[in-house]
Amino acid sequence: MTTSPSTTSTTPDADAIDESLGARYGDAAPDTIESVNDVIALQLRHRSVRQFTSEDVSDDAVTAIVAAAQSASTSSNMQSWSVIEIRDPERKAAASELAGDQEFIRQAPVFLVFIADWARNRAIAKHHDQPDAGIDYLESTLVSFVDAGVAAQNAAIAAESLGLGITYVGSVRNNPIALSELLELPAGAFPVAGMAIGHPHPDDAARVKPRLPQDIVRHRETYTTPADSAIDAYDDALSAYYASQGSARPWSPTVLARVRDEASLRGRHVMREALEQRGLPSK
Amino acid sequence: MTTSPSTTSTTPDADAIDESLGARYGDAAPDTIESVNDVIALQLRHRSVRQFTSEDVSDDAVTAIVAAAQSASTSSNMQSWSVIEIRDPERKAAASELAGDQEFIRQAPVFLVFIADWARNRAIAKHHDQPDAGIDYLESTLVSFVDAGVAAQNAAIAAESLGLGITYVGSVRNNPIALSELLELPAGAFPVAGMAIGHPHPDDAARVKPRLPQDIVRHRETYTTPADSAIDAYDDALSAYYASQGSARPWSPTVLARVRDEASLRGRHVMREALEQRGLPSK
Repeated sequence: MTTSPSTTSTTPDADAIDESLGARYGDAAPDTIESVNDVIALQLRHRSVRQFTSEDVSDDAVTAIVAAAQSASTSSNMQSWSVIEIRDPERKAAASELAGDQEFIRQAPVFLVFIADWARNRAIAKHHDQPDAGIDYLESTLVSFVDAGVAAQNAAIAAESLGLGITYVGSVRNNPIALSELLELPAGAFPVAGMAIGHPHPDDAARVKPRLPQDIVRHRETYTTPADSAIDAYDDALSAYYASQGSARPWSPTVLARVRDEASLRGRHVMREALEQRGLPSK
Repeated sequence: MTTSPSTTSTTPDADAIDESLGARYGDAAPDTIESVNDVIALQLRHRSVRQFTSEDVSDDAVTAIVAAAQSASTSSNMQSWSVIEIRDPERKAAASELAGDQEFIRQAPVFLVFIADWARNRAIAKHHDQPDAGIDYLESTLVSFVDAGVAAQNAAIAAESLGLGITYVGSVRNNPIALSELLELPAGAFPVAGMAIGHPHPDDAARVKPRLPQDIVRHRETYTTPADSAIDAYDDALSAYYASQGSARPWSPTVLARVRDEASLRGRHVMREALEQRGLPSK
């Protein structure tokens, strides 16, 4: 026998899977999950990469990444999202400054900004001389934000499957009006999330971050409120993770700091007004 | 030579890729995309499956699917989403009735409902006797909706990698109050999207649905408004797709019907009030 059939490996290394599950769930990890294949193993290994090498990301790679994003489901096939691909160092620096002034955005060769885009469908209505008042409701804003998120995650998985690293950038909503002007967005288009993409730097220390135990997030048949003690246990697990990164932050204080009040939203408490100003009244 | 090293195939069949690209983009398909690997090929092949066999989906498979969902990025690690796994036929039928009365939801062995969940973080604030007024802003609602979408898409890819078929169900927002009661959601939790999961029935006729040409959705550096003629060309491509499915619907009329007015939203024009009623005022 000189040849063997070429098959896709669907049984990745069991030890590697257990390691990923351990990193993802800490002590709350299931013993194993038989169904994990290569694709799911890739998903389990996700970590946010904020340090990149100077190696470029090819146009062909971004074409594949965007094709994956477009292949994701979209509500009623409305395709009410777009993506802006920023490579120009000056524009990338300007975008970074508006989005929390983060060095890794400047460092990444590609910065994608996913856009809630009803401008295209407004243009279609105008082209056919038809009304488009249905876009003015919060439901439409939510549809485009969710669809942008769904598309972005396909982009993330595609990028990671190519050995690239990514980090989502929610702070594109810190200064949405100024960023919209920088990206020349028309009325009806609004930034949802950025994504820095590049080749992970060997020095990048980020690891898989532990999540809440699965039985807190997954509810069988009806919603179950977790016991306070379950959250306390997760706090401990996350503290251990951050200790390994050189700091010590349990989870709850992070949550408390984010939910406290208007000021915790870092300027994003005006999102409603910003959306309206940009042509998405979100009634 | 009696053995060969077991490697993950990363160069899927070129003809299959070209076929997927052709189905996805029609005449606007790029000649090829060199970067497409097995994972991206899986993403390109996505189609919504609405006809399932009676074969069950194992608990282990759902554990893998939810682990993948939890491994996706989440804004500031807030993890402000949950998922309800419905298997009970009576509850599934009741959920289906509230969500557009769709047969494939009853047929699917598993119906996941992804939830925007600030109830958990409200409970943490209460546990620590701290304020949580930051949750009352639209920004927080948007974060939880986007994060639910991002998590859901990882679930979709995980399910499809296991050979399962999925369809998103946005109509879980048609009757969100009644559905929230059925699922016993606490205040601060709200349905975002459902996902029917099962083994695709051999009779299921759905194919890959063509999307807008990539250069309409992907903007380089700044936003570019597409020419009306580009949309007209896509209309023709989608008409051909639907003709193959036994009907004939270009895209623009679908868009026009969805954006026209309040009535086009099928009851979802009250999303703002519904969210407030369920503890997410979205100021």
